[in-house]
Amino acid sequence: MANEPLYKVPTNHRLLLAARPVGVPGPENFTADAVPARAPAVGEVLLETLYLSLDPAMRSWMSEGTSYKQGIPLGDVMLGGGIARVLHSCAEGFVTGDLVQARLGWQTHPTIAGRYLQKLALTLGSAEDWIGPLGLSAVTAYFGLRDIGGLRSNDRVLVSAAAGGVGQIAVQIARIEGCRVVGIAGGAQKCAFITDELGAAVAIDYKTEKDLSAAIARACPDGIDIYFDNVGGPTLDAALEHLRPGARVVLCGRISQTHAAEPYGVRNLGRLSAARGRMQGFLVFNYHDRYDEARTWLAARRRDGSLRQRLHVLDGLVQAPIGLGMLFRGENSGKLVVRVAEG
Amino acid sequence: MANEPLYKVPTNHRLLLAARPVGVPGPENFTADAVPARAPAVGEVLLETLYLSLDPAMRSWMSEGTSYKQGIPLGDVMLGGGIARVLHSCAEGFVTGDLVQARLGWQTHPTIAGRYLQKLALTLGSAEDWIGPLGLSAVTAYFGLRDIGGLRSNDRVLVSAAAGGVGQIAVQIARIEGCRVVGIAGGAQKCAFITDELGAAVAIDYKTEKDLSAAIARACPDGIDIYFDNVGGPTLDAALEHLRPGARVVLCGRISQTHAAEPYGVRNLGRLSAARGRMQGFLVFNYHDRYDEARTWLAARRRDGSLRQRLHVLDGLVQAPIGLGMLFRGENSGKLVVRVAEG
Repeated sequence: MANEPLYKVPTNHRLLLAARPVGVPGPENFTADAVPARAPAVGEVLLETLYLSLDPAMRSWMSEGTSYKQGIPLGDVMLGGGIARVLHSCAEGFVTGDLVQARLGWQTHPTIAGRYLQKLALTLGSAEDWIGPLGLSAVTAYFGLRDIGGLRSNDRVLVSAAAGGVGQIAVQIARIEGCRVVGIAGGAQKCAFITDELGAAVAIDYKTEKDLSAAIARACPDGIDIYFDNVGGPTLDAALEHLRPGARVVLCGRISQTHAAEPYGVRNLGRLSAARGRMQGFLVFNYHDRYDEARTWLAARRRDGSLRQRLHVLDGLVQAPIGLGMLFRGENSGKLVVRVAEG
Repeated sequence: MANEPLYKVPTNHRLLLAARPVGVPGPENFTADAVPARAPAVGEVLLETLYLSLDPAMRSWMSEGTSYKQGIPLGDVMLGGGIARVLHSCAEGFVTGDLVQARLGWQTHPTIAGRYLQKLALTLGSAEDWIGPLGLSAVTAYFGLRDIGGLRSNDRVLVSAAAGGVGQIAVQIARIEGCRVVGIAGGAQKCAFITDELGAAVAIDYKTEKDLSAAIARACPDGIDIYFDNVGGPTLDAALEHLRPGARVVLCGRISQTHAAEPYGVRNLGRLSAARGRMQGFLVFNYHDRYDEARTWLAARRRDGSLRQRLHVLDGLVQAPIGLGMLFRGENSGKLVVRVAEG
């Protein structure tokens, strides 16, 4: 019939940023609404969100603003990256059923310009692989260790938040490249995961170690060539005490500082200096034109079984704010994702 | 006559480390003695010390030990580098009258193996040049800025202790390479020296600035590409607040921390991370095989008049301990040296 729509307009369930967080964020920072999905204009695509990734950086997006990013305006859809399926395409290169990766936002049915979508190469892995071991957390670990850390085989590598999204991949990349790896995490379960599943030589449970520096000394008797830092703060200070000459410190994350009342003062930079060490920060987005290199490497290690990833899956968009709280309380076991719809 | 000695044995006046310093070192840490100079064995050279260099690193040599160097044993001759003239040579390649550079120690007439001596290339500069703009402080500035800092023309460069031995050369190398340079120093005289003689765009007097970060913001309105850090501590923290994307922090010295009761905690490493910045320590000795490269470059700039160095000369070995105190109280104006004998 003449007036029949080309497709059924779905309801877009959204979570909007309602209040900037004080401390650990949670459901109280968001409001839910439901609106008709916006019809795609020429060049745009209507999507159905399958997975959303929960990452430490999201906390800073919820604040007023940071040095490298404006905060999300109150009332806007919460930002977040993930995997979606194309429902209706008005953009060249995309057809219904394609799987894509994009900054979808916390909504079930985003409408996004095709130029902001990356079609998943399913030859490399499934949708679950793309949110996990081929996702941005994994790509972050890859470039952090290799380009920033200058990874060499036989390096002695220490990784903090080693059971987390980035950390667990960093542990494995270093192990695959022939390094001795020590991981730091909170709790016996995570520590067992790090040694038994990821192949670290030793795991340090920071929750039971009174003296983290002494624990690192025992776990890394020859010192550290690379410290892959996901937490900052006192853990960074403790790691600095054990740098070998020419060591590299990869500043990847600072989750310990996200909710600190005031920033921790790092006292041991003299050790970096004495070790002729290098400490460097980075943003994975700066490697955008080399994502394929990382994913090809990661997919090959995924296929040969040497690279694992544990996903911690929460079901339903409504769980996203709860998951954010779990992330910052260290309650997740594995890379934390929200399954918004079945693939 | 048969029993006439080959040369007159001079008296070697020495300063021995008598007590490890608490706080700023001074004459109370040393005792003087005088012994006949030791006759050179085969392969050795008897020297007459002309100049000794006073450098911040010497304070750490006086302590029990550091992570990269054992402390000087009590009762031993104080360590120190400088320029000397050959009085009598039993080593191939050296003849009476040659000028050499070596770790002479605080003594007027050291006897040292020829393999530890570097003959001065007087084509590059005079003995005064070799203790000054061709000396290790200058070579440190060269490799720190270029290799560690990755100096590029048009970089915005901030240098602390900018009137000091390393700092004044760093300011000038950056200026010669086309950078806009801001120097930090204590006192109006040093600040005038930095702008008027060294060619910095702005000098910041840390003694009169209540808010160093605000002063840096005014002096560096476009931020900082390279921070050449000679002081550490709160100055480093203030500089970190103004890093541009991709900035480099050269950890050259930490004179503010030398006598700190406890180490200052650096709070702004998050800025390094957000700027994707790099912070790196180094030891000039690691560039030993490239000293000639640095000196050739420095000598050429010396000859064409673009590179200046102000020496602060103290006369007589007895002044060395006093000079060390001046150095750590910031009372020197220029690269501090002790003239032990006339060249």
